Amino acid sequence: MKALYFDGQLALREVEKPRPAPGEALIQVTLAGICGTDWEILQGYSGFRGILGHEFVGRVVECAEKKWVSKRVVSEINVSCGECDLCLWGLGRHCPHRTVVGIVNRDGAFAEYVALPVVNLHEVPNAIPDEAAVFVEPLAAAAEILEQMTIPPGTHVAVLGDGRLGLLVAQVLHHAQANVTVIGKHAWKLDLARAWGVKIATAGDNELPARSFNVVIEATGSPSGLGEALRLVAPRGTVVMKSTFQEKAQFDTSKLVVDEITLLGSRCGNFSVALDMLARGQVKVQPLVSKTFPLEAGPEAFAYMKGASCLKVLLTTLAGPASSPGP
Amino acid sequence: MKALYFDGQLALREVEKPRPAPGEALIQVTLAGICGTDWEILQGYSGFRGILGHEFVGRVVECAEKKWVSKRVVSEINVSCGECDLCLWGLGRHCPHRTVVGIVNRDGAFAEYVALPVVNLHEVPNAIPDEAAVFVEPLAAAAEILEQMTIPPGTHVAVLGDGRLGLLVAQVLHHAQANVTVIGKHAWKLDLARAWGVKIATAGDNELPARSFNVVIEATGSPSGLGEALRLVAPRGTVVMKSTFQEKAQFDTSKLVVDEITLLGSRCGNFSVALDMLARGQVKVQPLVSKTFPLEAGPEAFAYMKGASCLKVLLTTLAGPASSPGP
Repeated sequence: MKALYFDGQLALREVEKPRPAPGEALIQVTLAGICGTDWEILQGYSGFRGILGHEFVGRVVECAEKKWVSKRVVSEINVSCGECDLCLWGLGRHCPHRTVVGIVNRDGAFAEYVALPVVNLHEVPNAIPDEAAVFVEPLAAAAEILEQMTIPPGTHVAVLGDGRLGLLVAQVLHHAQANVTVIGKHAWKLDLARAWGVKIATAGDNELPARSFNVVIEATGSPSGLGEALRLVAPRGTVVMKSTFQEKAQFDTSKLVVDEITLLGSRCGNFSVALDMLARGQVKVQPLVSKTFPLEAGPEAFAYMKGASCLKVLLTTLAGPASSPGP
Repeated sequence: MKALYFDGQLALREVEKPRPAPGEALIQVTLAGICGTDWEILQGYSGFRGILGHEFVGRVVECAEKKWVSKRVVSEINVSCGECDLCLWGLGRHCPHRTVVGIVNRDGAFAEYVALPVVNLHEVPNAIPDEAAVFVEPLAAAAEILEQMTIPPGTHVAVLGDGRLGLLVAQVLHHAQANVTVIGKHAWKLDLARAWGVKIATAGDNELPARSFNVVIEATGSPSGLGEALRLVAPRGTVVMKSTFQEKAQFDTSKLVVDEITLLGSRCGNFSVALDMLARGQVKVQPLVSKTFPLEAGPEAFAYMKGASCLKVLLTTLAGPASSPGP
């Protein structure tokens, strides 16, 4: 089968079709999304070697549990042992023995097929088209914030970054009645947020006073975002960190101590929550699709993502011309 | 009066005795403690210029409110406006208009006299000798952790650092039934902790496995402590940061995101709690006194603190020979 493989260089390769292990299903990938983390892996993050890709939707083509066959599915990306203390506490996403699809010791979904444990799968309701289902993983990561902390309705929240994740987080928190301001650099991306009823501000305009938000979500994907987040957060407030990157960040920890700031690391979330939000139309994800490339054009898709001012870039295994609904 | 003044250089100076403003009391300082923050100010932290010192006990010698006169007192160090939102919410310690005794825009207590608002004062119960009362400020800072987060009894807590603050934090959390391990470099300091029933470990022995504590208190006073704290903390755990220093810290924020760690800045605490703990003998502070110098020997006291393996160094305005109960 064809797969997008990274071994220091990203390239399309012809590799063996995976064979599902006991308890696994073989899934034919329909549509996959490129994430900022994929880009960071190309820069050295996580040291991953193998088939990239952890955001996808597909159809089960082979499974010992017959009820799964031909079901349209998405998959949790953390494959955990199911037996350690963290797994038993329901925190399999933190299982120390876990592999992570396309990130840690397990091949990903930028391929025609991927094999994954059935316990990781979620059936996608008919109400959710593929172009929305492919957002389940990042949407779950956005909703994870509400699993980790209480954000009372009306709380002044700044979302730093108008990228893919920033716009998902803004919608989720706006839906939860927070008073959200997205701070970004791109007028056309901020316009999307404004259309959803979210407040917007242009980064660098310096119009936002220091210490003016109780909660700041750092979703810029850049180490420098943390400094601005710490400038904006009020005493005893919380900065939620959503960005992973290869570089180390440097900052004034004394500010954290003096203002008694909480810095909260936040990663993967609950897929059921994200599927429910999509099925009920509570968030808009399809306007975030900038361009869809065929899997074979994977390296070009990555280059496009880096070069253009875009949002989500998708890879499809289905035949047909590349679509480009975004600017 | 004599005072220990910092203007880029630390020196004993003859300065004018302060005149209490309306609402203030004039306090004759009896005993004062040198804090790690004082040392950091000499390195440039906070940009302070003036009389140093924020840990002290003294006696009121002049006050319009007669009930305070001749009372033995300690004083909250944040002098807040009393009118802003944060003050009205009971968070005067975060008042944006505040001055801070010996740290921000207000002369401190390494002097014969200091003038402070009576609203900042707490009378010291007779059960607490001066040598214990001088620890109220750092003890309150240690107890602040319990005001910011819940630490259920039995929680595995590592206290990184066997210095003054680390040993106070260890006692406070041990008193609150946490399962505390102090990790330090000095056998004689760790022996103190062991005598109080606290578990100990020698830093660098590498015997403590990664991700083995739910809560880690960073009290090393050094930017490098944060890396070890992040190594020791378990997924979804909390690192409490107590150290303020001039340097910026650099660390791998992705670890924070992937393991969903909470980093909690923690500073000043509630004096009433600390006075109550001292009056009831719940923590031992006098074994932490390494040496007492006369105020006039302030620069020598700072040099001693830097050069020796010591704990708390005190300055006294009372006549008599220097005492040295510690090693």
